[in-house]
Amino acid sequence: MRACGIVAEYNPFHNGHAYQIEQVRKQLRPDVVIAVMSGNFLQRGEPAFLDKWTRTEMALAGGVDLVVELPVQFSTQPADYFAKGAIQILGDLNIDCLSFGVEEGLGEEFLQAARWMVENDALISHEMTKRGASDVPYAKRMEEVLSQLAPNFPLHLNSPNNQLGFAYAKEIVKQDLVDQIEIAPLIRKGAGYHEPSIKDGAHIASATAIRKALQKGEDVQAYLPKKAFDSMRGKLEQAMTWDDYFDLLKYQLIVSSTRQLHDIYQMTEGLEYRLKDQIIEATSFEDFINRIKTKRYTRTRLQRLLTYVLLSFSKEEMEKSLDKRPAIRVLGFNKKGQAYLSEQKHALHTPLVSNVNQKTKEWLNFDILAGEIYALGHENIPNQDFKRHPIKFD
Amino acid sequence: MRACGIVAEYNPFHNGHAYQIEQVRKQLRPDVVIAVMSGNFLQRGEPAFLDKWTRTEMALAGGVDLVVELPVQFSTQPADYFAKGAIQILGDLNIDCLSFGVEEGLGEEFLQAARWMVENDALISHEMTKRGASDVPYAKRMEEVLSQLAPNFPLHLNSPNNQLGFAYAKEIVKQDLVDQIEIAPLIRKGAGYHEPSIKDGAHIASATAIRKALQKGEDVQAYLPKKAFDSMRGKLEQAMTWDDYFDLLKYQLIVSSTRQLHDIYQMTEGLEYRLKDQIIEATSFEDFINRIKTKRYTRTRLQRLLTYVLLSFSKEEMEKSLDKRPAIRVLGFNKKGQAYLSEQKHALHTPLVSNVNQKTKEWLNFDILAGEIYALGHENIPNQDFKRHPIKFD
Repeated sequence: MRACGIVAEYNPFHNGHAYQIEQVRKQLRPDVVIAVMSGNFLQRGEPAFLDKWTRTEMALAGGVDLVVELPVQFSTQPADYFAKGAIQILGDLNIDCLSFGVEEGLGEEFLQAARWMVENDALISHEMTKRGASDVPYAKRMEEVLSQLAPNFPLHLNSPNNQLGFAYAKEIVKQDLVDQIEIAPLIRKGAGYHEPSIKDGAHIASATAIRKALQKGEDVQAYLPKKAFDSMRGKLEQAMTWDDYFDLLKYQLIVSSTRQLHDIYQMTEGLEYRLKDQIIEATSFEDFINRIKTKRYTRTRLQRLLTYVLLSFSKEEMEKSLDKRPAIRVLGFNKKGQAYLSEQKHALHTPLVSNVNQKTKEWLNFDILAGEIYALGHENIPNQDFKRHPIKFD
Repeated sequence: MRACGIVAEYNPFHNGHAYQIEQVRKQLRPDVVIAVMSGNFLQRGEPAFLDKWTRTEMALAGGVDLVVELPVQFSTQPADYFAKGAIQILGDLNIDCLSFGVEEGLGEEFLQAARWMVENDALISHEMTKRGASDVPYAKRMEEVLSQLAPNFPLHLNSPNNQLGFAYAKEIVKQDLVDQIEIAPLIRKGAGYHEPSIKDGAHIASATAIRKALQKGEDVQAYLPKKAFDSMRGKLEQAMTWDDYFDLLKYQLIVSSTRQLHDIYQMTEGLEYRLKDQIIEATSFEDFINRIKTKRYTRTRLQRLLTYVLLSFSKEEMEKSLDKRPAIRVLGFNKKGQAYLSEQKHALHTPLVSNVNQKTKEWLNFDILAGEIYALGHENIPNQDFKRHPIKFD
């Protein structure tokens, strides 16, 4: 069976995502569409709006055939590690093509740029390190380095989508999957990634805009496939934001010593002192972010760090875990997805985990902990891992 | 000036406490009555019903002249360490007499019993250790040992009040304060320590009964001195129980590894596994206690342990701290209390802390942390330490 992969957060699944799947089926003709999806904590360093099971159901309702989980140690990372985990899993699932939304660029250009980048890795690192002490954000510094070293670089990396797509392409090169996986960028339609409001008349709105509208109690039916909307409908009281975890975060920052906070992943340059100084007076998550944010420490970087604090992810454990090939955690499938899994099962090099139990839990330590903490956000959020089975969608 | 000391929790201050002060003034004729009072976490391993400042104000309104804080590392302990901290502080404050409520016994009997106990410490420890593995609670085992070694022991130790009084007497002997401090037990009147309900017509009710009545919204005016009642009146929305900290406790037990929990003070015999196993499904503090309670692990013992978990008090830090002579933290005084402090100030061997600042905070690490965590229980609980000054009562 021919399989096409997508890396997604579906926070929540909307018409833009459905459009991508439609285009994938039309242009790439796969038998199955597989999504590797962030679980309960996401790439921008925040809790998922709805838990991974609700989002899996929405994705299946929206046309995905198989949903597997991107482990939390990868899902809460900048593009490089996010892509590393996703491509490892999709590569292990033997996909034939990868679709991702971009602002511009052809598959061949992504591949060519990725190859150049991987080959010149040492040189680029050296140039980046030279600029390391500046307050300029990573993406901006990378652009400077590229315009210096490769004036004819075929891509612009000034949008989050192009950056992510490029990171996938790089991982495909690094993981030696170029002959296996066709790179298929799809020019995005409709709203930009962070477009804050729903445009009148458009049927595509960004996930950010949809979340905001839902929080205001506005009707968003027009922007979601009907079946996906129905899957979400009864779950909105369990919709989470950082606000729902702010008390726990505040407690953790108070009760932990600076020495303990120093051991948290990505806690660098004495940030633990800054966090401890500011948390006592902070009245909300937003207020806290505004107190600690600087040019150097952007909102997203801080949100990721605070996610690691909330989940108590240590430098040592995280670094070890990021070097380890992740297991494939199945969240849900329809008949086609199930058939694909049956076909692949015996050829897989990594464990395929459908049920979490005493035997399989060691593969999912981080996700189990993240799920237990996510569930503290609302009393109605069910148990996320133990005793849960993949969703079977008809 | 002649000073008489009292060890108290005042949770909250009531007519029974006012009666004690009245009797102290009548029988012992002090110039000042000094209370060393638990701060925000108490001897039975629970958050104080009202914060230490409200309870200080109530105590001053009820007739105490000077209130100092029993540091949290002592206030959350069984009788021995509770008494050790309290008598160190009162001894350092040069009190002349100590009053405490008991069921029975004269000062001379407490002193005699304490002397015998201190002299035979090694023997008693040996006998206790022999019984150490049994499921019988500490107090019960001690009674068995005493009836074996000292059939004519002059006291019964079968009530919490007699046990506490006896612990004070022992500390007076151990700390070589027998010539300085007169031991003055006072036979208690009215309700027993844990008497659950208010008896009709009685003007004395236990603190437990008063808290229960307040939680049900019942009128308790008859059981508190009027001025103390007035000090409490506006603060009842900030009345705390373990329920207000259950989410934080649950989070802490989930997010901490068994290795980290093992380092918590009093975490023995693999209790960390039991706590982690049971917390996930527990729906309330009460439910959790019922899941983990056994004959061997009594409610009070577990509540103390969970207090150490909530406050993240490690074995290493606690043991070091319990060996250190505590500073004297002043919470409030009236004119007489102030005059006494002025008289004593220059003779004190330990630091006297009236204001917490960068210089004095090192003396109060544990209390500052406990106050910060206590304040997470309700948004209206004010900052407990920094920028707070002793209450001056007219």
